[in-house]
Amino acid sequence: MRDNDFSKYILDICTKSKKASRKLANLATNERNTVLYRIAAALRDKADFVIGENKKDLAVADKDGVTKAIRDRLLLNRERINGMASSVEDIARMEDPIGRIESMSIRPSGIRVGQMRVPIGVIAVIFESRPNVTTDIAALALKSGNAAILRGGRESINSNIALYSVIKEALNECSVPEDAVVLIDRTEHEAVTQLLKMNSYIDIVIPRGGESLIKMVTAESLIPVIKHDKGVCHTFIDKSASPEMAVDISVNAKFQRPGVCNAMETLLIHNDFSQKVRVLKALKEKGVELRGCERTIKLLPAEVGPASEQDWGDEYLDLILSVKIVDSMEEAIDHIHKYGSNHSEAIVTSDYGNAERFLREVDSSAVFVNSSTRFHDGGEFGLGAEIGISTQKLHARGAMGLLGLTCLKYVIYGSGQVRN
Amino acid sequence: MRDNDFSKYILDICTKSKKASRKLANLATNERNTVLYRIAAALRDKADFVIGENKKDLAVADKDGVTKAIRDRLLLNRERINGMASSVEDIARMEDPIGRIESMSIRPSGIRVGQMRVPIGVIAVIFESRPNVTTDIAALALKSGNAAILRGGRESINSNIALYSVIKEALNECSVPEDAVVLIDRTEHEAVTQLLKMNSYIDIVIPRGGESLIKMVTAESLIPVIKHDKGVCHTFIDKSASPEMAVDISVNAKFQRPGVCNAMETLLIHNDFSQKVRVLKALKEKGVELRGCERTIKLLPAEVGPASEQDWGDEYLDLILSVKIVDSMEEAIDHIHKYGSNHSEAIVTSDYGNAERFLREVDSSAVFVNSSTRFHDGGEFGLGAEIGISTQKLHARGAMGLLGLTCLKYVIYGSGQVRN
Repeated sequence: MRDNDFSKYILDICTKSKKASRKLANLATNERNTVLYRIAAALRDKADFVIGENKKDLAVADKDGVTKAIRDRLLLNRERINGMASSVEDIARMEDPIGRIESMSIRPSGIRVGQMRVPIGVIAVIFESRPNVTTDIAALALKSGNAAILRGGRESINSNIALYSVIKEALNECSVPEDAVVLIDRTEHEAVTQLLKMNSYIDIVIPRGGESLIKMVTAESLIPVIKHDKGVCHTFIDKSASPEMAVDISVNAKFQRPGVCNAMETLLIHNDFSQKVRVLKALKEKGVELRGCERTIKLLPAEVGPASEQDWGDEYLDLILSVKIVDSMEEAIDHIHKYGSNHSEAIVTSDYGNAERFLREVDSSAVFVNSSTRFHDGGEFGLGAEIGISTQKLHARGAMGLLGLTCLKYVIYGSGQVRN
Repeated sequence: MRDNDFSKYILDICTKSKKASRKLANLATNERNTVLYRIAAALRDKADFVIGENKKDLAVADKDGVTKAIRDRLLLNRERINGMASSVEDIARMEDPIGRIESMSIRPSGIRVGQMRVPIGVIAVIFESRPNVTTDIAALALKSGNAAILRGGRESINSNIALYSVIKEALNECSVPEDAVVLIDRTEHEAVTQLLKMNSYIDIVIPRGGESLIKMVTAESLIPVIKHDKGVCHTFIDKSASPEMAVDISVNAKFQRPGVCNAMETLLIHNDFSQKVRVLKALKEKGVELRGCERTIKLLPAEVGPASEQDWGDEYLDLILSVKIVDSMEEAIDHIHKYGSNHSEAIVTSDYGNAERFLREVDSSAVFVNSSTRFHDGGEFGLGAEIGISTQKLHARGAMGLLGLTCLKYVIYGSGQVRN
């Protein structure tokens, strides 16, 4: 396609999508739920077809010699497709937020003013690798009455097209407009460039993926962006911390699943905490590579390597941890604000005042006292399915559930009032 | 200044502002209120100085031969400065939203998860003409614990510098960091261009002004934008409308203050509404120029001119009104979605079902039944002072009060929990 053709291709998608969004917004709860159950059933029915198409992506991945982790993220099998179907059913069972009127009040003028929860409209999601995002986002969008435009990565294009054909068939069988979900089946970058200009059609764009994807979308988009950026998460062990908690929480935050955004990347320890070596040894025993400040190295010279300036800002997503000894909670908080990504930070402490101050002063989307940063998750927070973890402050901050795909409009009930 | 100097100038402002925002976020309620009362008192004390500086701007405006409306928006006198001071005091008296924890719940893991209302951080506001925005925004930002970077228009630069010097002196006399509010005192466009790149320092940017300003900010900004765009507001008179209400509400929505964004710009009348001519004549009597569709012209050929395609999308901000006769509510809603700006729309009706359907289906930030669109206002809705009326769906939709300058972060109270 030439540039001009891309612009027509994207305009066509956006026009259909916006039209579908109006119809979708007016469907009843059970109409939206019915199509979700239909999609789940169709996924199970057509698992073999999807797995067959997924094999094509895996073959390309093998030829390209991708890492084991990337191949694993790409892989679909019967068990995973079953999991995707169950997740769609879970979303169908969630309470419908749409149409609810919140905080109604009567004003001196006599008008009654409330706020009605409504769909946002058209949502574009740009994501990488994992094909399950296709069904998750489609389901969350349909549940919340939004039209979705999906743009997956080149590496999973066959899987995504297959999943989308299953979704589309289900939409056609129900009373839902078939353009309620649209997949961009062109993998060229130009398709994204054109898409990001369509702010008259698309209400929000959500990039889910690596730093370069998010930077590109932020720079190019005329549409408001909800970022899901990296997590450089910290745990601070205060001098009054329970040694057992300090060990358990540090090990869990680093070791339980190191490859995710809410895993700890830097450990800050108060110099007056007596069990510093015990915590470091516990991490070392789990196979964690430690990179420390000078004081950390002095504690365990044989087991701790030096941390460079770059280490403090790195998201390792691996069994590597940077460690710094600090003289005060203020120093810890300053370090977090200087090097962190405002994602998830924890304090381990027995001091009431420090716990409250840490909660208040640390400017992150989730701040934990005496618990692991690994809890920063839509499921663990009780939001149900999660669109992602937003790392910006506008609209949705931190774990973003179904409500993140809705907004509030004012509804005013009058009886002839005019303004003086 | 050369480009390089601008980039240093803006970087310096942003660095100071971010630093101030951390301190500001941790101030107690009474510390933030004290500085607001101090600012209000200082405004009254130094009114003569401010009026003197304002005269310089007026002299330039007169030389440039600006319209009477623009000159009026620019003018500061003792009464207006008193009003600005009172408005700052009103903001000081508002309930403090900061630190409040909402919706705390206990999860199966044993952690308690809540959401704490916190400042956003650093807010940049780019505005045109009215100097009172300087004190309003400074007060709202300080009240909500945010640092503010202000960029007023070239036409009010002397007034803004004077007002800012008053604010800065008050900040210095209190326990608030003096960089909590910063005014960009360079009027070159390059200052804005540089500012809009500073997404590592500034959390949101709010453009308040004409369409071209908003387009420019949307296109150039790497920082999330909260738009305050134009209002192409509609009133739909249903066939069952009370004739008295139809007249009162139409006249009020157009005539009471035509130069503002929540004034009606297009009137849609159901063809079966029997008192069409009465409504049109009432508007005509108030001096409103009517531009109608063919059927409207047929009703009153001598008094209605033809509406062009462009008229349907115009924000007149004047005593001009486009009028269309429609055959159904669906046609009215389609027209609104095609030509409107999703700002404020009203229905006049006696039909319960139509009222509810209109409220639900019209995708605008405020939807009114049997009342004037002129009520779309922070004060009328009970929000207190208003930052503006947001025309986007993300974060704050419609009238945006103090809460629009805050966000919710997750706070988690644990007792040693780790994730399985």
